[in-house]
Amino acid sequence: MRDFIIAPSILSADFARLGEEVENVLAAGTDWVHFDVMDNHYVPNLTLGPMVCKALRKFGVTAPIDVHLMVSPVDRIIGDFIEAGASMITFHPEASEHIDRSLQLIREGGCQAGLVLNPATSPDVLEYVMDKLDMILLMSVNPGFGGQKFIPSTLKKLCRVRKLIDDSGLNIRLQVDGGVTANNIRQIAEAGADTFVAGSAIFGAENYQHVVSQMRSELAEVVAL
Amino acid sequence: MRDFIIAPSILSADFARLGEEVENVLAAGTDWVHFDVMDNHYVPNLTLGPMVCKALRKFGVTAPIDVHLMVSPVDRIIGDFIEAGASMITFHPEASEHIDRSLQLIREGGCQAGLVLNPATSPDVLEYVMDKLDMILLMSVNPGFGGQKFIPSTLKKLCRVRKLIDDSGLNIRLQVDGGVTANNIRQIAEAGADTFVAGSAIFGAENYQHVVSQMRSELAEVVAL
Amino acid sequence: MRDFIIAPSILSADFARLGEEVENVLAAGTDWVHFDVMDNHYVPNLTLGPMVCKALRKFGVTAPIDVHLMVSPVDRIIGDFIEAGASMITFHPEASEHIDRSLQLIREGGCQAGLVLNPATSPDVLEYVMDKLDMILLMSVNPGFGGQKFIPSTLKKLCRVRKLIDDSGLNIRLQVDGGVTANNIRQIAEAGADTFVAGSAIFGAENYQHVVSQMRSELAEVVAL
Amino acid sequence: MRDFIIAPSILSADFARLGEEVENVLAAGTDWVHFDVMDNHYVPNLTLGPMVCKALRKFGVTAPIDVHLMVSPVDRIIGDFIEAGASMITFHPEASEHIDRSLQLIREGGCQAGLVLNPATSPDVLEYVMDKLDMILLMSVNPGFGGQKFIPSTLKKLCRVRKLIDDSGLNIRLQVDGGVTANNIRQIAEAGADTFVAGSAIFGAENYQHVVSQMRSELAEVVAL
Amino acid sequence: MRDFIIAPSILSADFARLGEEVENVLAAGTDWVHFDVMDNHYVPNLTLGPMVCKALRKFGVTAPIDVHLMVSPVDRIIGDFIEAGASMITFHPEASEHIDRSLQLIREGGCQAGLVLNPATSPDVLEYVMDKLDMILLMSVNPGFGGQKFIPSTLKKLCRVRKLIDDSGLNIRLQVDGGVTANNIRQIAEAGADTFVAGSAIFGAENYQHVVSQMRSELAEVVAL
Amino acid sequence: MRDFIIAPSILSADFARLGEEVENVLAAGTDWVHFDVMDNHYVPNLTLGPMVCKALRKFGVTAPIDVHLMVSPVDRIIGDFIEAGASMITFHPEASEHIDRSLQLIREGGCQAGLVLNPATSPDVLEYVMDKLDMILLMSVNPGFGGQKFIPSTLKKLCRVRKLIDDSGLNIRLQVDGGVTANNIRQIAEAGADTFVAGSAIFGAENYQHVVSQMRSELAEVVAL
Repeated sequence: MRDFIIAPSILSADFARLGEEVENVLAAGTDWVHFDVMDNHYVPNLTLGPMVCKALRKFGVTAPIDVHLMVSPVDRIIGDFIEAGASMITFHPEASEHIDRSLQLIREGGCQAGLVLNPATSPDVLEYVMDKLDMILLMSVNPGFGGQKFIPSTLKKLCRVRKLIDDSGLNIRLQVDGGVTANNIRQIAEAGADTFVAGSAIFGAENYQHVVSQMRSELAEVVAL
Repeated sequence: MRDFIIAPSILSADFARLGEEVENVLAAGTDWVHFDVMDNHYVPNLTLGPMVCKALRKFGVTAPIDVHLMVSPVDRIIGDFIEAGASMITFHPEASEHIDRSLQLIREGGCQAGLVLNPATSPDVLEYVMDKLDMILLMSVNPGFGGQKFIPSTLKKLCRVRKLIDDSGLNIRLQVDGGVTANNIRQIAEAGADTFVAGSAIFGAENYQHVVSQMRSELAEVVAL
Repeated sequence: MRDFIIAPSILSADFARLGEEVENVLAAGTDWVHFDVMDNHYVPNLTLGPMVCKALRKFGVTAPIDVHLMVSPVDRIIGDFIEAGASMITFHPEASEHIDRSLQLIREGGCQAGLVLNPATSPDVLEYVMDKLDMILLMSVNPGFGGQKFIPSTLKKLCRVRKLIDDSGLNIRLQVDGGVTANNIRQIAEAGADTFVAGSAIFGAENYQHVVSQMRSELAEVVAL
Repeated sequence: MRDFIIAPSILSADFARLGEEVENVLAAGTDWVHFDVMDNHYVPNLTLGPMVCKALRKFGVTAPIDVHLMVSPVDRIIGDFIEAGASMITFHPEASEHIDRSLQLIREGGCQAGLVLNPATSPDVLEYVMDKLDMILLMSVNPGFGGQKFIPSTLKKLCRVRKLIDDSGLNIRLQVDGGVTANNIRQIAEAGADTFVAGSAIFGAENYQHVVSQMRSELAEVVAL
Repeated sequence: MRDFIIAPSILSADFARLGEEVENVLAAGTDWVHFDVMDNHYVPNLTLGPMVCKALRKFGVTAPIDVHLMVSPVDRIIGDFIEAGASMITFHPEASEHIDRSLQLIREGGCQAGLVLNPATSPDVLEYVMDKLDMILLMSVNPGFGGQKFIPSTLKKLCRVRKLIDDSGLNIRLQVDGGVTANNIRQIAEAGADTFVAGSAIFGAENYQHVVSQMRSELAEVVAL
Repeated sequence: MRDFIIAPSILSADFARLGEEVENVLAAGTDWVHFDVMDNHYVPNLTLGPMVCKALRKFGVTAPIDVHLMVSPVDRIIGDFIEAGASMITFHPEASEHIDRSLQLIREGGCQAGLVLNPATSPDVLEYVMDKLDMILLMSVNPGFGGQKFIPSTLKKLCRVRKLIDDSGLNIRLQVDGGVTANNIRQIAEAGADTFVAGSAIFGAENYQHVVSQMRSELAEVVAL
């Protein structure tokens, strides 16, 4: 039986009082802080850098901070995020000239490492670095923009990557990001995911705890399978 | 007699409670919010994007937000910051293929426009766009890093640019950013500056109001000249 | 039974009287106008932009205009070609950071969308975007240069992609570009292609109609299989 | 007494019948063909490449073809345009790593060479290559877009560059491009220009000859000064 | 029975007396000179260019010089190395926009051609260019840095590529580079390699001949299988 | 009275026995080793990296090694050359986003720092960093290629930069590189240079000492002025 992780994306939080927002969303029953980093080059948007991650740690956040780099190149900023208190760092294989080396950098810095697959990216890129991965993130929308719907072909890819992970016998989390809501989280989990990024579905709600509970109920059904 | 503007750089603020920090520093007697945008390409650091600017407006900040783009290219993100509530937008001439056009974009969006000169950049670049400038920002440290000291040759450049502005008869503010403290602000103003960015000098102090008052006192001496 | 499309590449036409050339080649029995766009970056050549596409529409061309982008990046210029009257737009997956998003842009603009595979590119890139494709173009020469011969390994790739399309049950055209002549078009069709770009084979002939008829005769044999 | 050259920009011509358009505009009394090359990188637009230049020569155009490269980098494509029959080739100093070398490439290929200054670019860049220039082109709009108005500060820059040329004793043409019409051509000539690019002002008119005559009349007044 | 090639990497040689070093290492029983070219862009290091290759030929080196390009782009410098006396040229598929064309350039220049796979790169990229390859190089460390250990997953990839080669019936060498020593060379050969790059393992030894003999002994055991 | 420095460029030396060549050319009466670094990006050539510099030091070279970076970007490789034993490091202002910072990096590493001006580059770029310069290098040919002739307009620029240095009262060497021979060295020195790079003029001679003596005799005449 897999344990399920809910990782609210702070991209949908109120940046004017981020510490409080993060405290609240964790108190509402979520597990990790999903930290979306965009550089206006790999994606056409610019969000938050290492200083904000460091500020959350200084504010008292002790939950895992899961940094998703939507930047290119990645190697220099990996060091910045390690120092800023990141727990996991994931990046897109297209954004690094030397994927194996970037994964090593992350682990040598004491963080968990992962790769992120865009909607069109094939899981073939995972094969020769499986032993260096702690997480695989499948994008179920195109990164860089908010307000998109879950892309259905992600379900097929989830099944395939779930099988890759299970066959490997390795301890690798399978995360999904984009358009995850209480309505589809069960289907996504049944396709193989165990870690769920949710942005506006949580931060856009009146009551964070209510949505998170709904998600947990849905996931409990999966567990019961 | 020039009026003096003090623009605290939020790069030195606590990002976990940014709204509150900005309110406090404005309440302490400062005038503008200086918003440093870095993209990990034009400078080796990534800070804050348009969403954070928008969040400050939503939080209730009504003071001018002075956006300093340390990004390249600039044209696409200019639109994002206009929409996010920026009051002024400045960029580095080296970061735009088409300086005149980028300045026009900013003004057409209803913002004030400016150019930023790196420590080594000559003011020659200003000559044919003076009529499209509302502000000229001289960097007195190299952008992208904190904790640097004021570069003395900035004083010489301030004198030269002050003369350019006065000769033009145009209403252009002359801003300085980097290593400005209560100890050197008077000398900087005497060289020609009228707008002062201060980061750690203010946010690093126990009492924001105390430092700002000191700066005002020093500036009052200049006025008395 | 598949219908066959012949799409003359205007790269081999006389640019000084392009409207007339296009009219003539369509009158000679071809179906589409294949419009090769090169930007001197993705390939070492620069050809024609959206203004020329728009001019053809204004001239009275009503046949489908099939725009093949050999440019990088693709997103901004996709909008230009939609506005200029393109019917289909294809691009190379290596030329877009976000393939799924670029395909969506094309369809949202009312055009048909496709991907182009270079001679060395694996069809693996197609798997998770099949439902967003109206056409797949296999390059049978390296793009960017004229006067090259058909690369034989394209036949093997045609078979594989034909199977992918048939297995998907989707309505996706399979196009070939490079070194197609009346002598090899039958073999290419038998390997799975249904849409044929021909440049010098048509425009280099004394009589366009004669060549097109030859191609049709060859294709009729395929149909009879 | 300077001779004045009128160079219609084919960017405003009908691309479906370009040969005929060029013949007509030359017959209307213009002198050169101004050929605008954009690559979707140096400017956000893509226009026409060397093949179109070659087609004009093959069509029978014998007038000088004045190629304005709005591309970056420039060195490789310079060779293509030399071979395609260009008479002059100009480029932007920001678009070449090695300006002196690019100018040499053009002259070694038997073409006249020139530099183009954007609205914000200082003429300082000309000083150490004056002896390698046959033409200096001042942009009076930002390149890459149509339908812009003449930027007034160009007049000041024209005066300065005219003086640079006169002081050098060299035979260098001084060209202006952007927003030139029969209404302002006299003022522009009086500021120092001797070569005038006009696009929509000519091609947008009912009668090309009529506009060109108007321009000539205005220029005749200048001569009379 | 395969013949085994040992190719010492001159990256570990003494650059102040390179000709002598190369002579010595060949006299010690090695077969080829492995020439590592880094450009400070594709990898964060800069090593040696074509002039050094040419100097070795002029010095009298007649053994094959096997040039491994860790540069991007590759097309222009391929010509330089052909002219400088290279025997084989290999490059990374990620470093060329047009892989098939780059391979053709190498062969047309009279050199043998090959592709290099980074530790994370899938062999899928080989499928449609197998007939244009004389060598496949698998990196068993991340290129650009010295002193790394052999990455174990290379063995799995060697088996897969060996099968690809054998199935193709083509004469393609299978080379390994990174962390090869006398201790692991046998295992590497048994996984399918026939060509071995060794740097510090040879040049770091007191006696080159001694190490090479050890390697040959190990390889002899493989042959005996 | 200025002292004159002759710095032979190792680009013209025999790379197969570089240590010996350097020893010989220093024994022939030259002062520094001029080390030309090209990266196939800033210039279309790739030469030698830090490892070769380190090898010269290990070989026993104690003379100043004057590293001329024809690479972009420069910041990362500056550290490599500091560690490799460089004495001075110069770079092109166009090749660094942040010139003042790059100069500081060099000096903080214990090396002397300098800027290099291309033939077309204006000395205006020097004004605000004069106090951070130990050397100014004027290119008298376009960098990246051998066998070029001295560009005459360099003499005018030498006079201007000599005056800038003298007016500053700072201790800054003025170096010239490109086409320097015994025939023109006197004229170049009289225009203001005090440090002379010579490549083929020295290494292409039968007798290094003979050429160096000729140069010294010519320079002695200058001193006598």
